[in-house]
Amino acid sequence: MPIKTCRSALLLLLSLSSTAALADEGQWLPNQMPQLKSELKRVGIEVPAKQLADLTAAPMNAVVGLGYCTASFVSPKGLVLTNHHCAYGAIQYNSRSGRDYMTDGFLARRLQDELSAGPQERLYITEALTDVSEQVKAGTAELDDGYQRHQLLEQNQKALIKACEADPNYRCSVRSYHGGLEYYLLKQLIIRDVRLVYAPPESVGAFGGDIDNFEYPRHSGDFTFLRAYVAPDGSPAAYSEDNVPYQPAGYLPIARNGVRAGDGILVAGYPGRTSRHQLQMEMAFAADWLYPTQAGRYQARIDAIESQTDDAVRIAYAATRTGYANRMKKLHGLLDGFRKTDIEGIKRLREAALDEYLAAQGQHALLASLQAKLVEQQRQYQQTFYLNNAQSGALLSVANQLYRWAKEQEKPDAEREPGFQERDRKLFQARMARLDQRFMPSMDRQLWQMDIDAYLAQSQRDEVLDGQLARLNLDNVYRKTELGSQAQRLAWMDRPAADFETSKDPLLAMAVALYPGNEQRRKASKTLQGELTALRPALMAAMLEWYAEQGRPIYPDANGTLRISYGTVDGYQAADALYKQPFTRVEGILEKHTGQAPFNAPPEVLQAIRGQSYGELAQHNLNPKRAWYCWVWPCAQAKGPTFDSVPVNFLSSADTTGGNSGSPVLNGEGQLVGLNFDSTYESITKDWYFNPRITRAIHVDIRFVLWMLSEVDNAEELLNELTLK
Amino acid sequence: MPIKTCRSALLLLLSLSSTAALADEGQWLPNQMPQLKSELKRVGIEVPAKQLADLTAAPMNAVVGLGYCTASFVSPKGLVLTNHHCAYGAIQYNSRSGRDYMTDGFLARRLQDELSAGPQERLYITEALTDVSEQVKAGTAELDDGYQRHQLLEQNQKALIKACEADPNYRCSVRSYHGGLEYYLLKQLIIRDVRLVYAPPESVGAFGGDIDNFEYPRHSGDFTFLRAYVAPDGSPAAYSEDNVPYQPAGYLPIARNGVRAGDGILVAGYPGRTSRHQLQMEMAFAADWLYPTQAGRYQARIDAIESQTDDAVRIAYAATRTGYANRMKKLHGLLDGFRKTDIEGIKRLREAALDEYLAAQGQHALLASLQAKLVEQQRQYQQTFYLNNAQSGALLSVANQLYRWAKEQEKPDAEREPGFQERDRKLFQARMARLDQRFMPSMDRQLWQMDIDAYLAQSQRDEVLDGQLARLNLDNVYRKTELGSQAQRLAWMDRPAADFETSKDPLLAMAVALYPGNEQRRKASKTLQGELTALRPALMAAMLEWYAEQGRPIYPDANGTLRISYGTVDGYQAADALYKQPFTRVEGILEKHTGQAPFNAPPEVLQAIRGQSYGELAQHNLNPKRAWYCWVWPCAQAKGPTFDSVPVNFLSSADTTGGNSGSPVLNGEGQLVGLNFDSTYESITKDWYFNPRITRAIHVDIRFVLWMLSEVDNAEELLNELTLK
Repeated sequence: MPIKTCRSALLLLLSLSSTAALADEGQWLPNQMPQLKSELKRVGIEVPAKQLADLTAAPMNAVVGLGYCTASFVSPKGLVLTNHHCAYGAIQYNSRSGRDYMTDGFLARRLQDELSAGPQERLYITEALTDVSEQVKAGTAELDDGYQRHQLLEQNQKALIKACEADPNYRCSVRSYHGGLEYYLLKQLIIRDVRLVYAPPESVGAFGGDIDNFEYPRHSGDFTFLRAYVAPDGSPAAYSEDNVPYQPAGYLPIARNGVRAGDGILVAGYPGRTSRHQLQMEMAFAADWLYPTQAGRYQARIDAIESQTDDAVRIAYAATRTGYANRMKKLHGLLDGFRKTDIEGIKRLREAALDEYLAAQGQHALLASLQAKLVEQQRQYQQTFYLNNAQSGALLSVANQLYRWAKEQEKPDAEREPGFQERDRKLFQARMARLDQRFMPSMDRQLWQMDIDAYLAQSQRDEVLDGQLARLNLDNVYRKTELGSQAQRLAWMDRPAADFETSKDPLLAMAVALYPGNEQRRKASKTLQGELTALRPALMAAMLEWYAEQGRPIYPDANGTLRISYGTVDGYQAADALYKQPFTRVEGILEKHTGQAPFNAPPEVLQAIRGQSYGELAQHNLNPKRAWYCWVWPCAQAKGPTFDSVPVNFLSSADTTGGNSGSPVLNGEGQLVGLNFDSTYESITKDWYFNPRITRAIHVDIRFVLWMLSEVDNAEELLNELTLK
Repeated sequence: MPIKTCRSALLLLLSLSSTAALADEGQWLPNQMPQLKSELKRVGIEVPAKQLADLTAAPMNAVVGLGYCTASFVSPKGLVLTNHHCAYGAIQYNSRSGRDYMTDGFLARRLQDELSAGPQERLYITEALTDVSEQVKAGTAELDDGYQRHQLLEQNQKALIKACEADPNYRCSVRSYHGGLEYYLLKQLIIRDVRLVYAPPESVGAFGGDIDNFEYPRHSGDFTFLRAYVAPDGSPAAYSEDNVPYQPAGYLPIARNGVRAGDGILVAGYPGRTSRHQLQMEMAFAADWLYPTQAGRYQARIDAIESQTDDAVRIAYAATRTGYANRMKKLHGLLDGFRKTDIEGIKRLREAALDEYLAAQGQHALLASLQAKLVEQQRQYQQTFYLNNAQSGALLSVANQLYRWAKEQEKPDAEREPGFQERDRKLFQARMARLDQRFMPSMDRQLWQMDIDAYLAQSQRDEVLDGQLARLNLDNVYRKTELGSQAQRLAWMDRPAADFETSKDPLLAMAVALYPGNEQRRKASKTLQGELTALRPALMAAMLEWYAEQGRPIYPDANGTLRISYGTVDGYQAADALYKQPFTRVEGILEKHTGQAPFNAPPEVLQAIRGQSYGELAQHNLNPKRAWYCWVWPCAQAKGPTFDSVPVNFLSSADTTGGNSGSPVLNGEGQLVGLNFDSTYESITKDWYFNPRITRAIHVDIRFVLWMLSEVDNAEELLNELTLK
C-alpha cells in the first residue's frame, strides 16, 4: 500500500492498542499511578494506585535517595537497606590495614558499634515534588532569543532553589520533564549522620565483580545495611556520639517468602537519565558517531594505560582503566543491541505516525523545525567534543575551572552559573583538593597528547586553541606549573581573576587565553538549548495530547527524580536457543567459585551452601531431592518445580536505569522482596527503547539477604529488628 | 552407618536400578541391540532391535566410515552425506586460486561435474565384525611373561589381518574390547573413488569456526554430499572417468518433517575412544598430572608461536597453533567438568561395590593387583613423557623413525612392528614426504628447546640422552643435517641400518645412539601392556558377570568400531539459571552474523532468512506470527510452540564421541533426521563418565540441509535423488 495509507493504518493500530499493551514499560511519576490502575491490576499489584501516589504514605514514604543510588527504610529505627556497591564509600571509609571491612565484611551487633559512614555520606528523603512549571517559564513566552530564554529559565530556577533551601536541612533542585514542558521542584530532607550497620564481604556483595557486571546468570549479594541518625531533638545533624536513630515516617515490611516466577512487582527509586522520547535522528547520531567515537577514545586510553611498564603508574590509573572498561562494556552493549533490534526503524515509524497527527492538527512544520535545530546541535556537539578534549590535561582542566570560578565570583551570587555559586563552594573545593591519587604527570601527558592529536587530525579548529597548543611544551609544563600542589590549587580559589591574568604559570596563562573561546561556545550551547526549550516542549505537548486521545498515559524520560516501575518476575530468551531463567540459586555460587577474585566466595558461605543450610526461611521452597544414588548411577531426573534452594538474584521486567541501584523491589502487597542492582547486557539499549521481550532488571532476592543474616552471619539482632511477613 | 554396610546398601541400590535407569548412556555394539529392547521402546524407537543388529539390513547397511569420520548412503546411486569438516580434505583438494570451493561452496548439478576427492580419500563399508577372541588369545594363557604375551597377541592379530587382506579391496583390523577381554576382526570394503557433489560455503559449513567449537547454541551447516564410485563391473577401483556410481546395499530415507523435542533418536557410527571403564586412579592420574601437564606444555607452545614477530613463521605455524588451542579447549573442558561433577567420587563408589562383589566371588586381590600394575604404568608414562618430548625436534623425530624403519626392514615382514610393515610403506612415505609446509627451523628449534629444558628440569633422566643433549648444538644442527630435504628423507627410507650407523649427519647419528634406549623403553611398555592383558580382562569379565546377574547389559569402551547409541531430543541446564533449548533456528545466524569470519554468513543465506523463505519443506512448522506492529509497539507476546522457522542444529542425549562426526541421526522409524557433528562443552567429560543431566550431542538438522538445497541453492537434481518421507 502507499506510504500514506500505511501510516494511517499504523496510526489506527497504535490507537487500537489498549493499555494492556504497555508491557511493563515506564518509569512513572508517583502521581501518575491512578492512571495505571488496570495495568497494576493486570500484573497483580494490590496496593491501591492512589496510595502509591502518596509520598507521605506507605510504601513510598520508606523510599530514600543516596544522591547516586536509591535505598529504603526497613525498620522504625532508621535502618536502611541499599546495595553494597552504593555503600562502597561508607565501607571503604572505615577500612584500613588491619581492619579490612571491604574484604571481611562488617556487622555491628549493637547500636554503639555502628560506624560513621563519613562526613560526605548523605541520605535524602523526598518530602515534596511540586509542579513549578509556571514559575520557571514565567516571562519566557515573550522571548524569541534563545540565549535570553535560557538565562531567564535558569534565573527562575535558581530563585526557586534559593527560597526552598532557606532551611539548610533541605536540598532542593528543579528538574525538567518532557524536555522542558514541565518543571518540578524537588525538596529533600538531608540526613547527615549515616552509619554502617552490616556489609557482607566484597566477595559476596560484589561476587563476580566487573566480569559479571551487566551479566546474568548473576550471583551477587549486592546489599548493605546503613542507619540514619539525627540529633536527639529529631533534627538532622552532622555525626555526633549523642545522635540517635532517626524515626522514619514509614518503613518496609519484608516478605520472607519472596516472589515466584510470574508474580507482579514494583520498583521505586531515582532513575537517572533515559532518551526514550528522543528522535530517531538523535539516536542515529549516537549510534553512528557519538558511541563509536567515544568507544575509540576509551579503547585508545585503555591501551595506553595497559602498555605502561611502570607499576606505580598502572596502579594509579587502575580505577580509571576500570571506569573506561565499564563504559566500553556499556557502549558495546548499546551498539550490539542496535544491531539486534532496529530501534531506529521503530522510532522512524512512530515519528511518521506522530507527524501525521501533527499535520492533522495544523502543526505541519513542528517536527521538521525541531529536527533542523537538532542538526545544528549535533554539529556543535561534534566540534565541542574535540575542542574540549584538547583541553583534557588534568591540570589545564583545573586551571580552566579555577579561572572560571574567579570570573564568576565577580558577579552577585544569584547571577553566577550553576555549579559556581556559594552553595557549590564545598563541592568545588573538594574537587580541587582531591586531584588526585589517580594522577601521574607521565600518564596524564600521554593521554592528553592523544586528545590533542585527535583534535589536530580533524578540521573543526579554533585559532586561539591552535596557537596555544603550538606554544605548549608538554616536556616541561608539568614541571613549571604550580597546580600539581593541592595547597596552590586551593589558594587559587580565593584569588581574583586579575591575578590569573598576570600569572606566569603556563597553564593558568593558557586558561586565561582559552576562556573567551570557551565562554563563547558555552553561550552558543545555551542559545541552542534556549531555542530547543521552545520546540521540544511543543512536540511533547502534541504527543501527550495524541496519547491522551487514545486513553494512553505517557511517562517522562528519567531525570533523577522519584519514579515507580511495575513488572513481572520473568526470565527471557537471551539468544536463539538460550533461555535465562528468572532465579539463580546459591548452588550457582559453587559453580562459579574458583577461589580467585572476583569468584572467591568466603569459606563460611561455601560451607553453608555445601551443607545445604538453607535455614528455616527457605524450608517451604524445598522439593523432594534427587535420590543421592542418582549421582552415583544415572536415574531418571526428578520432576517438579526447579526450586529447592536459596535464591540469590532474580529477574523482572520492571523498567529501571542507572540511579535505580538499591531500589526496593516490592510485591503486590507493598512488601520488600528484593533490591534492584543491575540489568542484563541485552537491556542496555533501554536507554533508547524499552524492548519488553529482552529487557530485564536484576534484583537481589530478599531471601538471600535473610539467609546471609541467619545462616551465615547469625545476625539475630538485625533479623529481630526487621518486620518479617 | 559403617562403610561396609554402606557399600552393601549401594550394591543393593545398584542392583535394584532397572534398565530404565540407563538414561541413554552407551555406545553399543549392533549385536547388543536385542538386549536393549525395552530401552529402545522407552525412547520411542520402532525399528526392531534385531534389525538394528543386522549389518546387512537397513538402516545399518547404509552407515559407512571415512577412516576418521562417519557417513551414510542417502541414495541408491551411492550418494553419501557426511560433515563438512569431514570432507574438508576433499574440498581443499579441489580448491585453488580462482576456484575457491572452500569459500564459495560447490554444487555439481550433473554426475560429470562431480570432482574427485583425491587419491587419498577412502570410504570404508563394514562388511563383517567377527569375534576372533579365541584366535587372538590362542597360546597366551600359558604365558606368564608380559612381553611374550604381548608379542604373541600382536603376532596372532597380524596373521588374522594378513589373511583378511588377501583381497586388496579390503582393509582389516583387529580391535580389542573391554581391555582385551574380547577381540573382533573388522573387515571393510574400501571405496577408492570418492567424489565431491555438494558442499556449502565454509561460512555455512563451519559457521562460528573454532570460536563455536564445543559450544552451543550452534548454527553450523556442517554437511557435505560425496559420492562413491566403482569400476563398471562394480568392484572398487581408483579414480577413473569410466567409473560409475556405486550401488550400496542400503541407503537412508529422509524424514522431511525432522524431529520434535522429546522424540527418540538413534546415532550410528564409529566412535573413537572413551575411558568409561577405566578406574578412579586412572582418572586421577589424568586429572592431577596428565591433563595439567599437557595443558602447560600446549600453552607454552602457543605462547611461543604467538610471540613470533616474523609473519612467515606465524603463518607456517598457524594450523599447529589452532591444533594446540583446540586441544587446550578440550583439556580445559575436562578439567572444568571434573571440578563440577565429582566423577572420581562416583568411580570410587562403583569400584567399592565391585570390589565387594569380587570378594564374594573369592577374587579378593584382583582389583588391587590391577591397581598396582597401573601405578607402575603411570610411573613409566611420566618418565617416557619427558624422554620422548626431549626428542621432539621435527627432524630428530624423522631420524628416529627412519632408523627404526631400517632396523625393522631387517626382519621378515610378518615379524615387523605394526606401522613398519610392508602394508604401511605408503603411509610412512607420505609422512616423510610432507614434512612440511608447517616446519620452520627457527620455530622448531625454540619449541624443541622448551621440551629439552622441561626434560632437564626433572629427575627421571636417561644417561645416553643426557650425553646426546649435552653434545647437541642447536645453533648449527639445522644447517648440518640433510633431513630438511624431502628427497633425502625419502632416499633414507631405502638405506640399510648400517648406513645410518656410519652417517655423519648429526641427527641420524643421534637417532642411532638413542635407538637402544628407546627400544628398551618400548619393550618395557609392551611388557607392562602384556601383564595388563592378563589383569584387565579378568576384572571386566567379573564386572560383566556382576551386571548380568542384575540383568543389565554393558557396553565396551569406544574403540573405533561401528556402534549404535540411542537418545532423546532434549535441551539441558548448562548452568544455574541458564537453560539451553534443543533447537536453534536460522534467525540465530542473523543474531551471530557480524560479517567477519567465522561469523560471515553468505548473502544468499542472509537473504533467504530475512525474507523468511522457509520453503515448502518447513511450512508445517509455521506458527501464527507475532503481528508486525508488535515490533513497532510493545504487544503481549504471542503464545504457542517456540518453533516458527527452519531449525539449524539440535541437541540429543545420544552417547557419542570423536569419530561419530558425520554419523547419521535416525528417528524411531530409521529415517534420517540429522547428522552428528559435535558435542557441548559440558559434555567433554563424557570421555570418562556419561552424565545424563548435561551430556548432549549437537546435530545438523536435516531440515536445514533440505532448506539449503531448496531455498538457497536451488539444487533440484539432488533433492530429487533423495527419498523424502
